[in-house]
Amino acid sequence: MKITCSKQKLSEGINIVSKIVPTNTTMQLLQCILIRAENGEIRFTANDMEIGIETVIEGTIETAGMVAVDAKKFSELIRILPDDDITIETDRDFILNFSCASFRSNPTLVGVNGDDYTFLPDPDRIEEVAVSMYGFKDVISKIMFSVGSGDINKTLSGANVVIKGDQLRMKTLDGHRVSIRNMKLKESYSDVDVIIPAKTLNEINRILPAETEKDIRISFCESHAIFEFEKTVVVSSLIDGQFIDVERMITKDYDTKVKINRKRLMDCIVRSMFYSKEGNKKPIVINISDNELELTIRSSDGGLEEVIEIEKEGKDIRIGFNPRFVFEALRVIEDEDVELYFVNSRSPLYIRDEAENYIYMILPINLNE
Amino acid sequence: MKITCSKQKLSEGINIVSKIVPTNTTMQLLQCILIRAENGEIRFTANDMEIGIETVIEGTIETAGMVAVDAKKFSELIRILPDDDITIETDRDFILNFSCASFRSNPTLVGVNGDDYTFLPDPDRIEEVAVSMYGFKDVISKIMFSVGSGDINKTLSGANVVIKGDQLRMKTLDGHRVSIRNMKLKESYSDVDVIIPAKTLNEINRILPAETEKDIRISFCESHAIFEFEKTVVVSSLIDGQFIDVERMITKDYDTKVKINRKRLMDCIVRSMFYSKEGNKKPIVINISDNELELTIRSSDGGLEEVIEIEKEGKDIRIGFNPRFVFEALRVIEDEDVELYFVNSRSPLYIRDEAENYIYMILPINLNE
Repeated sequence: MKITCSKQKLSEGINIVSKIVPTNTTMQLLQCILIRAENGEIRFTANDMEIGIETVIEGTIETAGMVAVDAKKFSELIRILPDDDITIETDRDFILNFSCASFRSNPTLVGVNGDDYTFLPDPDRIEEVAVSMYGFKDVISKIMFSVGSGDINKTLSGANVVIKGDQLRMKTLDGHRVSIRNMKLKESYSDVDVIIPAKTLNEINRILPAETEKDIRISFCESHAIFEFEKTVVVSSLIDGQFIDVERMITKDYDTKVKINRKRLMDCIVRSMFYSKEGNKKPIVINISDNELELTIRSSDGGLEEVIEIEKEGKDIRIGFNPRFVFEALRVIEDEDVELYFVNSRSPLYIRDEAENYIYMILPINLNE
Repeated sequence: MKITCSKQKLSEGINIVSKIVPTNTTMQLLQCILIRAENGEIRFTANDMEIGIETVIEGTIETAGMVAVDAKKFSELIRILPDDDITIETDRDFILNFSCASFRSNPTLVGVNGDDYTFLPDPDRIEEVAVSMYGFKDVISKIMFSVGSGDINKTLSGANVVIKGDQLRMKTLDGHRVSIRNMKLKESYSDVDVIIPAKTLNEINRILPAETEKDIRISFCESHAIFEFEKTVVVSSLIDGQFIDVERMITKDYDTKVKINRKRLMDCIVRSMFYSKEGNKKPIVINISDNELELTIRSSDGGLEEVIEIEKEGKDIRIGFNPRFVFEALRVIEDEDVELYFVNSRSPLYIRDEAENYIYMILPINLNE
C-alpha cells in the first residue's frame, strides 16, 4: 500500500474513528485502525464489536492495499509530523514508512496484517430516517446527562428513540429523573421504538458537525442502527429489551406552578452545590410562597439562604432536591424563564415548556427522613 | 471582623497565597489561609512551615479582626460568588458570612480562631539584592527542569544561587545533567552562596509578574531568604549544606563543535521521543560527520533516521543520549542557532552560548552497553 494524504486529513480521520478503540484489550487487532486503500478510496475503520466507525479520507492512492495499525501510536506519530503532505508506504512485513517533502527523515511504525480485521456489519435496513445534523446533536447533548448505568437494567444504559409519524422523541432515565426531548422531522416515517447505547450517541455527538442545513441518515435494522453523514458511517448494535414505560409516569396535573428566571435559579443552585458534596448528599430545601421561592441548604461547612422572585399559581409547597439534578436539567434549557410544576412534596418536579419540546422530571428527597 | 473587597481582589489574593497550603495534613490550621484586617490593611497569609506567603489585598475594613479559613473551601466559595463587591463578616463562632449587593443571599463558611496561626518568621537580613522581576522569572523557568529529587542528596532539591559582584548565577543538577544560567545585576553586592528550595522558586515564578521595569527584592538571612515584590512577601527556609561543586565539571575544551539550527534539531528530537518511552529508555544515536548530523533511534514500534545540515569544527563523533534531556535544554534556549560541544562519546555534551548566559551539560548514554 502507498498513499499520500495531508497531515490534516489524516488527523481528521483518526479523530473520527479512534475514540472507540478499546485500550484494555488483549486482542491486538481491536486496538488497531484498519487503513484500506482500494477502489480509489482511502478508508479508516475502527470497530469495538458493539460500535464500528468507518470514514473516507481525502488523498491519493499509488498502490492499493490494507494494513492495521495501533490507533494510539498512529495518532501520536501523525501528531508530531510536520503539517505537510505525508506519504505512507507499507512493506511486506506491514511496517509503515512515513515520508514528506519538507525533511530528510523516514519514521516507521510497525503495523499488523489487516486480513483478520472484522469489517463493519451490513444488516438489512428496515426504515431510513433523515434528521437534521444540528437538531440530532442538540437533542443528544440535552438528554445524555440522565442516562442510567445499566448495572441493574441494561436497557437504561441507552436512550429510547421513538419515531411516530413526523415526531422523534428521545428519553433517558436513571432512577432519580427522566429527560425527554421531542423534535419534528421533515417527513413522516413508519413507527420506530429502539434503545441506542449511550456510547454510540455520545460518539455521534462528538463527531457529527453542527450543520443546520444538512441531514444525518439513520437506518434502523433488526438489531443495529446505521448512521451516515458526509463520508462517515457508524454502525451500532441496539440494546435488546423494552425501555421502561416512561409515558405512564408523566402527568400534566399539578397543584403548584412556578414561573422563574432560569439563570437566576441556576446561579443560586450552583452556589448551593458548594454545600452539597458527594459525601454529605445534603439536599436543597425549596420553599414556595406567594411571589417568592426561598432556597436553603445547611452543611458542616456553613449554609445558604437565598430568595428569588417568582410568578406562582396554586398552593404553597416545601420540597427537597439533590441540587445537581435540578442544575443539570436547567443547564440544557435555553429559555429565559422556565416553568416548574409540583404536585406535593413526595411527587416529582416537572420542568417543561408549553409545546413540550422538553420534559425534565426529577424525584424529590424526603425531608422528613 | 468586617471587610469589603471586590471578588477579583479576593481571588487574586487567594491565588497568590493558597497554592502552598498543604492538602494532606492533620493540622487543620495548616490547611487554612489567615485573613487579618488591622492597621488599615487586609492581609492573606499561608504558611506550610518551609515557605510562607503574605499578601495585602485592596479593600475596606469596617471592623478589624482576624480569622483562619480552609483555603480550598474559601477559594471554591469565592469562585462561585458574583463578580461584585463582597462583604465578609465574622461572628463570635468564627463563621464567615458573605454578602453582596446584587442578590438576597448570605452564604456562610465555618472558619477557625486565627490566634494559634503561625505568622511568617522575620529573621535578620544580611544582604538585600534587587533583581529584575522579568529576569528572575526567566532564569528560574529555564533551569528548574533539571532540579534533583533530593532523595539521596537534599541539597539537589533546590537551586544553587551564587552572587559575586554584579553577577547572579543559578544552577540545578539532577545526576544526568547540569543547568546554569547567568544574569547581570544593576549593582554589585557582597558574596552570596545559598540553596533555595525548588518549591519556593516555582511558587515565585508562578506569582511574580513578568515586569521588565520593576525589581523583586531578595534578602538573604542566616537560614532564610525573603522575597518582596508589590504587596507580597515570601519567606522561605534555605536548604542547609554545600551544593555539589559544579564548576569543577565544566570544561571549555572540546574535540568537536557543531553549530545547528535549534528548532530543526528540536523538532527532530520530538519525533525521536515517540520511540523512546519511559519503559524502554531507548537512546538517540547522534552521528556527526562533515556538514551533517544524523540522528537515529530504533524501538519495537519502529524507528527514525533523520539528517540535519550543520557547521562542524573538529573530529567526527558518534554518541548517544536520552532524547528528553536534550529536548528540555533546547526548549528553554531562545537562540536561532545553538552550539554543541563534545569531547568524546563518554564525555558530556555542553550546549552554551558565546557569552555563557547559559550552559547546559548533559551526560551521554553508553552505546556499547
